[in-house]
Amino acid sequence: MTDTAETAPGCALNMGAPLSELMQQGQLLNQNCPSREILRHLTSRWGVLVLIALLEKDSRFSELRRTVGGVSEKMLAQTLQTLETDGFVNRYSHPVVPPHVDYSLTPIGREAAMKVRDFADWIEVNAVRLLSARRRQNGAEVAE
Amino acid sequence: MTDTAETAPGCALNMGAPLSELMQQGQLLNQNCPSREILRHLTSRWGVLVLIALLEKDSRFSELRRTVGGVSEKMLAQTLQTLETDGFVNRYSHPVVPPHVDYSLTPIGREAAMKVRDFADWIEVNAVRLLSARRRQNGAEVAE
Repeated sequence: MTDTAETAPGCALNMGAPLSELMQQGQLLNQNCPSREILRHLTSRWGVLVLIALLEKDSRFSELRRTVGGVSEKMLAQTLQTLETDGFVNRYSHPVVPPHVDYSLTPIGREAAMKVRDFADWIEVNAVRLLSARRRQNGAEVAE
Repeated sequence: MTDTAETAPGCALNMGAPLSELMQQGQLLNQNCPSREILRHLTSRWGVLVLIALLEKDSRFSELRRTVGGVSEKMLAQTLQTLETDGFVNRYSHPVVPPHVDYSLTPIGREAAMKVRDFADWIEVNAVRLLSARRRQNGAEVAE
């Protein structure tokens, strides 16, 4: 995060901007706004699933790999590092041999994960409707 | 969407599954569950921003390109096509010369976009806290 990005033209995220300005719609639509980067990390393919998994319980790397189906070792490591850099995830390395590292959510990480979980819940509860919408759409295309 | 994916082992998304089963946590964590793909489209880098832009108003392609800062023509076209295939976006081509195409949200697309917007609002309202968390984290790393 550079100072330049934080004072991007047209971006209300400069410190001291009034809340009403911060809330003003369309900030995320400004490519120079740092909130765009936060959104991208929180909604990244694996970021979403790692947050949801950690909301369930603190986990070791190997546990997370098993829980988040399909993630590679490399992508999981990268995702955890990004979330740690953003201040959403804590990494605690126990001083033991062999190494034992626990990952957990920070307080703000937990808030973010709950928001992500809300959205994921909506998808899961509406999955049947969502899949029918897609099938209808594809049927309409075939009929054209 | 193949039938195989819809009956993936361990995935409760088979039609007729009771709601309690659908709501059971961890479905998205199963890589074979089709809800995972929906989540990925709805949280894709540009998908999120296009949904938010269309929630404001129906738009032409060129308007969307201006609104969603930083998106390339190719990525916008691809994002709109994915959202259309999923049944979230309607594409209406007016029968005029030169061509005039309007994009709008379907009813379920509007619901999804409102959920996405909720999450985006949380990020915008908390942006200052989110950026401080990141700065603290980076400071801690430097101090290590």
